[in-house]
Amino acid sequence: MASSSVGDVSPQRLRFESALPLRSGAQIRDYELVYETYGRLNADKSNAVLVCHALNASHHLAGTYAGQDKSEGWWDNLIGPGKPLDTDKFFVIGINNLGSCFGSTGPMHQNPDTGRIYGADFPVVTVHDWVDAQARVLDRLGITQLAAVLGGSLGGMQALDWSLRYPERMRHCIAIATAPSLSAQNIAFNEVARRAIVTDPDFHGGFFYEHGVVPKRGLRVARMIGHITYLSDDVMETKFGRKMREAQGALPLSGTPSDDYAYSTQDIEFQIESYLRHQGDKFSEYFDANTYLLITRALDYFDPAREHGGDLSRTFASSRCKYLLASFTTDWRFSPARSREIVKALLDNKRDVSYAEIDAPHGHDAFLLEDPRYHGLLRAYFQRIAKEFSA
Amino acid sequence: MASSSVGDVSPQRLRFESALPLRSGAQIRDYELVYETYGRLNADKSNAVLVCHALNASHHLAGTYAGQDKSEGWWDNLIGPGKPLDTDKFFVIGINNLGSCFGSTGPMHQNPDTGRIYGADFPVVTVHDWVDAQARVLDRLGITQLAAVLGGSLGGMQALDWSLRYPERMRHCIAIATAPSLSAQNIAFNEVARRAIVTDPDFHGGFFYEHGVVPKRGLRVARMIGHITYLSDDVMETKFGRKMREAQGALPLSGTPSDDYAYSTQDIEFQIESYLRHQGDKFSEYFDANTYLLITRALDYFDPAREHGGDLSRTFASSRCKYLLASFTTDWRFSPARSREIVKALLDNKRDVSYAEIDAPHGHDAFLLEDPRYHGLLRAYFQRIAKEFSA
Repeated sequence: MASSSVGDVSPQRLRFESALPLRSGAQIRDYELVYETYGRLNADKSNAVLVCHALNASHHLAGTYAGQDKSEGWWDNLIGPGKPLDTDKFFVIGINNLGSCFGSTGPMHQNPDTGRIYGADFPVVTVHDWVDAQARVLDRLGITQLAAVLGGSLGGMQALDWSLRYPERMRHCIAIATAPSLSAQNIAFNEVARRAIVTDPDFHGGFFYEHGVVPKRGLRVARMIGHITYLSDDVMETKFGRKMREAQGALPLSGTPSDDYAYSTQDIEFQIESYLRHQGDKFSEYFDANTYLLITRALDYFDPAREHGGDLSRTFASSRCKYLLASFTTDWRFSPARSREIVKALLDNKRDVSYAEIDAPHGHDAFLLEDPRYHGLLRAYFQRIAKEFSA
Repeated sequence: MASSSVGDVSPQRLRFESALPLRSGAQIRDYELVYETYGRLNADKSNAVLVCHALNASHHLAGTYAGQDKSEGWWDNLIGPGKPLDTDKFFVIGINNLGSCFGSTGPMHQNPDTGRIYGADFPVVTVHDWVDAQARVLDRLGITQLAAVLGGSLGGMQALDWSLRYPERMRHCIAIATAPSLSAQNIAFNEVARRAIVTDPDFHGGFFYEHGVVPKRGLRVARMIGHITYLSDDVMETKFGRKMREAQGALPLSGTPSDDYAYSTQDIEFQIESYLRHQGDKFSEYFDANTYLLITRALDYFDPAREHGGDLSRTFASSRCKYLLASFTTDWRFSPARSREIVKALLDNKRDVSYAEIDAPHGHDAFLLEDPRYHGLLRAYFQRIAKEFSA
């Protein structure tokens, strides 16, 4: 089957004047959400798929922006005409979450209550709040029921929460490489990253915007920690191992490695160091420090079983839709065991659930990559969904 | 068998005026090493055991300092009269490594060549260099051959290197929870920790001493990362899980947990956060930032197979002593697979090697804890060694 890109796309924007009540008890008003859509909404509005994003992603799922070659959407390998999530059949929606830094209202914007930049005053947002804000977007688009909600990692948590908050508004929940809550180790990594940011003197308590600086040191360290947890130990070993840095000025992963140690504590010796520093530097150029805190906190707080005495089976009693879950064998951030907890809770409730544990070497990052078994699974599942409305 | 503490101990100090050539090509002269001994050296000097330390430890292996209640040595549970490494039979030596911050010459001392504090000018030291420096101490003590060299983690690397550098000077090598080299993931964690320190504005390129400051922010983050890798995912889950923080002012792991989120990105919500911050704070009060860089670099550089084309079996062809290796099932920093690489290389050379994979929940930290199977193993092995000289 030939597949192609969705081509040039443009973000759209919706303004919400009425206040959104948040899980914390606070509320946010006069906010904007940026979104993109791909494909066409059918006549009875039954072919819409909402795709939720994780930490470092956005509403820009697929396609490119006119004149910007390298602006490919983050899930472009999955979404497009003839691709597993086929935009010839589905109307796909990506929404940038509240508090993010890719266009929707976030900490870098003005607080209508004070006239100042929000900074650290931006309200703490949860997965629950994002789901509510997304539901309001769908209201505006006139979509009563989604064919599916899809997400990986933190996006998968949103898909799961959707199925609990709005069980009647969706027919399928597709949650990839996710977990019913963070483990202590997951929280620990988030906390170290946050400490690196918050203790950077350029953070200024979260009000760095008015000082004309960015806590880049902290953001770099935070991103480096993140990257270690996104990759499997194995793939890191295969890709980098103990390979030495390249000759001065060369790019990482190309050129001839040097064969002796430089005996330095501060210079780059190993390719893995070069890779991590490069990822950290790039990230610190565009990502917002307050957004990093907000999103990692949303991850920490996600725990739908909490309101049900920690009982995940009771939690999913209110679910109505069908489920597809997938995990990756080498993912040590959200291991298959975490997905199995969800599958068990769904089976306890006799829900229709498909589950695949995919043997892929790439760790948590696998959910973003084009693995044939993984994409084959999603393709087959979306074909099954498409039959429901084309039949 | 009744066991007791070695009681009050005192560190001793040796000065070395002649230069020690280092692996990097540099050398260090007029340096001092601090050490402690426990038990009595027998008449033919055949009962000496050298114990090598890891990152955050020192020559102070066992016992306490007079008048200092909480000054127990870091391996006090293992070393003492009637303990697995029985000081009624063995003469045990602990030496603080060059570049460390517990009394031996390090970056916080004066460089005799310049009259300035070394700071970032302290030469890069390797496991190889530490072993050479330790051998010089033994020369001064008149010990020609050690009954054993023992170490865990980075200490295990020194024990292994001893058996390659000075095969005739030891009869047994006991290497616990160690590896023949760091993996890419191991190096990655070290690198993030180093970046946190080096990019702390209070680091001043390693010359912070003259500015009267300490890069505490970086040290805190470095230590937090370290702690995550020392504990197993499982033990973190059992110990902390998603338990909430205690009421204001209470110490970690005591008191009544609060049962609602505070919805804050910067305050402590979970006990694991409180634990990590506490560990980071403590560490930043006493550990030297340049020492942290030096020691993590020594870990990165350790790779004895490097001079043998990466062939670990060829590397161990020069070994002569008997070996005991032990690893812990839940150690994801230096997993059992890494110890097995060493065992295989020794078996390829038909060496006498004992190996135990101990089912303990504590991760890498297990090597410091008093697990009955682990301590039983060491006790039995040291009893076997004791027979060699008491017979």
